[in-house]
Order: sequence, then C-alpha cells, then structure tokens
Amino acid sequence: MRSVSGPDVQAGRLTPLRRRPRVGHIEFLNWLPILWGLARSGSLVELDLVRGSPERLSAELAGGALDVGPISLVEFLTHADDLVMLPDLAIGCDGPVMSCLIVSRVPLDRLDGVPVALSSTSRTSVRLAQLLLAEHIGVRPRFFSSAPDLDVMFAQAPAAVLIGDVALRTALYYAPTRGLVVHDLGRMWRDWTGLPFVFAVVAARREFLEREPETVRQVHSALLNARDRAIAEMDELCERTARWEQFDAGTLRRYYTDALNFGLGPRQQQGIAEFAARTGFGVNVGATLLDSA
Amino acid sequence: MRSVSGPDVQAGRLTPLRRRPRVGHIEFLNWLPILWGLARSGSLVELDLVRGSPERLSAELAGGALDVGPISLVEFLTHADDLVMLPDLAIGCDGPVMSCLIVSRVPLDRLDGVPVALSSTSRTSVRLAQLLLAEHIGVRPRFFSSAPDLDVMFAQAPAAVLIGDVALRTALYYAPTRGLVVHDLGRMWRDWTGLPFVFAVVAARREFLEREPETVRQVHSALLNARDRAIAEMDELCERTARWEQFDAGTLRRYYTDALNFGLGPRQQQGIAEFAARTGFGVNVGATLLDSA
Repeated sequence: MRSVSGPDVQAGRLTPLRRRPRVGHIEFLNWLPILWGLARSGSLVELDLVRGSPERLSAELAGGALDVGPISLVEFLTHADDLVMLPDLAIGCDGPVMSCLIVSRVPLDRLDGVPVALSSTSRTSVRLAQLLLAEHIGVRPRFFSSAPDLDVMFAQAPAAVLIGDVALRTALYYAPTRGLVVHDLGRMWRDWTGLPFVFAVVAARREFLEREPETVRQVHSALLNARDRAIAEMDELCERTARWEQFDAGTLRRYYTDALNFGLGPRQQQGIAEFAARTGFGVNVGATLLDSA
Repeated sequence: MRSVSGPDVQAGRLTPLRRRPRVGHIEFLNWLPILWGLARSGSLVELDLVRGSPERLSAELAGGALDVGPISLVEFLTHADDLVMLPDLAIGCDGPVMSCLIVSRVPLDRLDGVPVALSSTSRTSVRLAQLLLAEHIGVRPRFFSSAPDLDVMFAQAPAAVLIGDVALRTALYYAPTRGLVVHDLGRMWRDWTGLPFVFAVVAARREFLEREPETVRQVHSALLNARDRAIAEMDELCERTARWEQFDAGTLRRYYTDALNFGLGPRQQQGIAEFAARTGFGVNVGATLLDSA
C-alpha cells in the first residue's frame, strides 16, 4: 500500500489527493476525432472531461472552470493574458471547411444593408463572416441572431451564417433543394489571404500551467496522440460515427481529412496573426504559444 | 452520399436523424472499468454518456432522462414495472466489497437505539445496513444523514455507514488511526445468507427497449465487451487510475478483481431475490430480466 495521507485525509474530508485536469470536450463532430483518440489510447480515465458547446467551453476556460481545452480563436485572443496556446493542435482549415458557411439566395455583393441571420453566437465565425463580407466582398449586412431553424431564418433574411454540424447538414440536405448557394468561409479566407484559418486553438490557463506544468504537458501529449490515433483509425471512426449521424462514412472522412486541419504550425500561426491584426487584436501570437520543447 | 432526409430535415430543424442512446456513467471507481472498456473498444462514440452520482443516475433512468444504465438495486426494484434488467452485468460482490461499510468504535451489537451516521442517500446500502443490523445483529440504530466529513460524523455518532470511494479511503487511511473497526457489508451479507450481494444492476427503460430493441442489444453487448476488456487490461487500467487516486495500483486491482463482481448469473439473481424478499419487494426478479438469447 502506498502511504498517502495528505491534509484532506487528516482533516477527515477524504477528497482525492490530486484532481484530474478538467478538459473541455466540444459536442460537435469536429472534435469527435480527439475524443476517439483519447478513448482508444486509454487517456480518458486520466482526464475530467467536460462536455459542452464551443461557446460554453470557451467561457468556462476563460473563467477558470476548466484547466485546458479548445477555445474559439476570438475568445482566446480576448483572454490571451490568462491563457497559453498549446502548439501543434487546433481546429482549422486550409481552404474549404464544410462547416462554416454563408448560405445565401442572392449573390454576396448584394447583401449590403440587408439582414443576415446568425445561427450561432460564436464570435469567431461571426467576426470572420463580417470581415470577409466587409473587406473582401465590400458589403455590410445587418446581422441578427436567430434560432437554428432554417425555414424561420430564410423567411426573415436572404442569407445566414451557419457553423458546425448544422452547417454541414444545411449544405448537404437543405440548400440544394431551396436554390440556396453555399459559400464556404474557409475557402473565402484562403482566396483572400492565401492562409489557413484557425477557428479554435487548444489552450491551458496560465495559472494552471504554472501550478502543474507536467500535467499540462501530459494533457498536451495525450491530445496530440489522440489526434494521431484518430487519423490512423479514421475508417473505423467514420464508420461507427456514421451510424448515428446524417452523414455517411465517406462524407465524414472527407470532413476530417480534407476539410478540417488539426495542425497548428507556422502557417496556421500566420493565419491567426493575420486575423488578429485585421480584427484589431493587439496580440503577439507567437508569445502566447507554449514552448513545445 | 447516403440519401438521408428525415422529417426533421424537411422541416428545417436539422436535428440528427437518430439520437445515440443515453447511457448513465457512475462517477465512482466501481464503474471506471466499464468506462475504460467502452473507451478502448471505441464504443464511446456511439453512446451519449451521462456522468453522475449513483443516486442521480438512478433517478434519471427511473424518470426517463436516460435510456440505459446502472441503477441502484432498490431503485430498480421500486421501478421494476418500467425497467428491464440486462443479464450478465451488475455491480456486486461475493464476500467483502471494500466500499460498503459500517465503521464503528463500538461492537455492532451495542448500536441498539444509538445514532448511526449515513454518508449517502443510497437506498440500497441504507436498506442493506438496516437489514443486517436488525435481523443479523439484532439492533435498531437511529440512522441520520450526514455530510461526508468523518470528523463531524464521529463527533455525532459512534458508527457510520459509508459507501463508494469515501468508504475505501476511510477503511485504508482514517479508521486505522482512530481505533475504528471496519465491518464490510458484503462480507456480512454473505456470512448471513451465503449469497452474493448486488448493489446495482444495469437496466433499460421498457419503453425504450420496445422502441429500439436492437439499440438495447448493442449497448448491452458494448457494456459486456467493455467489462471483459477492462478485465483483460486490468494492469494498465489500475496503473493509470492510481496516478489520480489515493489508492495504489495493487489496491485498485484487488478492489476490481477480488472485491467487486461485475457478473449477474443465477447466484447473483438469487441474491437479488433474497434481498427483495427480505425487504418486502414483491418483485419476480427473473421476470424482469431481458431474455439474453
């Protein structure tokens, strides 16, 4: 028997000596490969995985309810003083992303002053859509938030910004039968800047990193291994996921391997810096990155 | 592309066509082997796993917020009309269980009319403790609920009923330094009846089984495979879990392999029937069991 008797046991409270790191888990298809890899490698039992929407997880990491996890790029840039970006892992794209779209029944250059529905409160996709429409297309629509009911949205506006699984389903099943044209924000960003776009990075709270540097490195390593394992086992992941989603295994494979990019190298960092500069964030992106040594 | 366009897509709501079964996951060490196996086999991505305490998960399954999952024996017996027990899997013991205890500073036969603290609202362990003290030992203490602070409990009472991880920690770290004697309820039950005790069974809601029999069989199969995989990979499970718990790998292995019993065969069913009869539940246990053919 290992002799463990920390202060909590002494005081009769009997809480575990160490608590597992609290790590965010996005309940979207885009994060499922990471869950797959964490599961298959057994790392899951060493994490306190907290499920949630991207918005909720971003807020919880920024607010300190999580220690490590994915965070929307704009939220990261907003809270960069309290966070450290983990290298080599992100959710991004280098061209069409399939799940971050403007869906419109009129050409985009006719959207000036026109209402455009937002299906999500994700600040990153909203800022990206605003930026592309304003500076790439040259129009300034009037954005308004809407419940994710497409019939309601398109009754109120000729176009909508859609992200996540809803965007995937809209492009595949809804838009084609309604005469709606799908504009991929990942493709538009690459056409405009020549760079990848990063929707979410993975970050640790700075105070947590200072307190438990080894834990952060272990979580980081577990996440990287998870990503690699998911890529290696992509066929099985897609086949099993397809049983429960409105996408077949081939579509999922295309989404995970052609559309999404889970890397965070120099080009992705350049993409982040470009977005930060164009949206007025005075953040030195390189300086927020954890030394990967 | 598979052609899927259910009514939800038609109506523009775009929810997934099928939802994954909602399966309870107990946040206690006793259920961790099942999580390990579900993770390692990849089944995790096909389940909507809901974390919670045994009490909460029991209530959610009884109330319909979960489709399948572990449920405390007394809760199962109480709601047997709405539930179907899945064969071959349970959380029980056939002798000492290590995590369901009466810890006392006086001999048990001196507890008549004496206050005894309860660390948990688990009706199964409370009923088991009452039953054993009343009919096996011959005393009727005055039970009262208490926050799980041992110093407070033992300031108010000479004995306490403890279950779960708190019980494990108490037996190992607290009781030996306080002159408290640990009585294992699993051992007491076996001494008294010669039978195994089952603390929780795994059940499906009857309405869910009728609607989705194939899903229930798949979940059942995934859970059985998970249990078997955990047993096959017990060393790695225990080593990785020990990094985050107050127990070393050897203690965890002893708990999972010697103390806990994850089977539900004829002897376990006899144990359930014995407990049901002695506590006044008029439930035909065999009739509530899903045909395992």
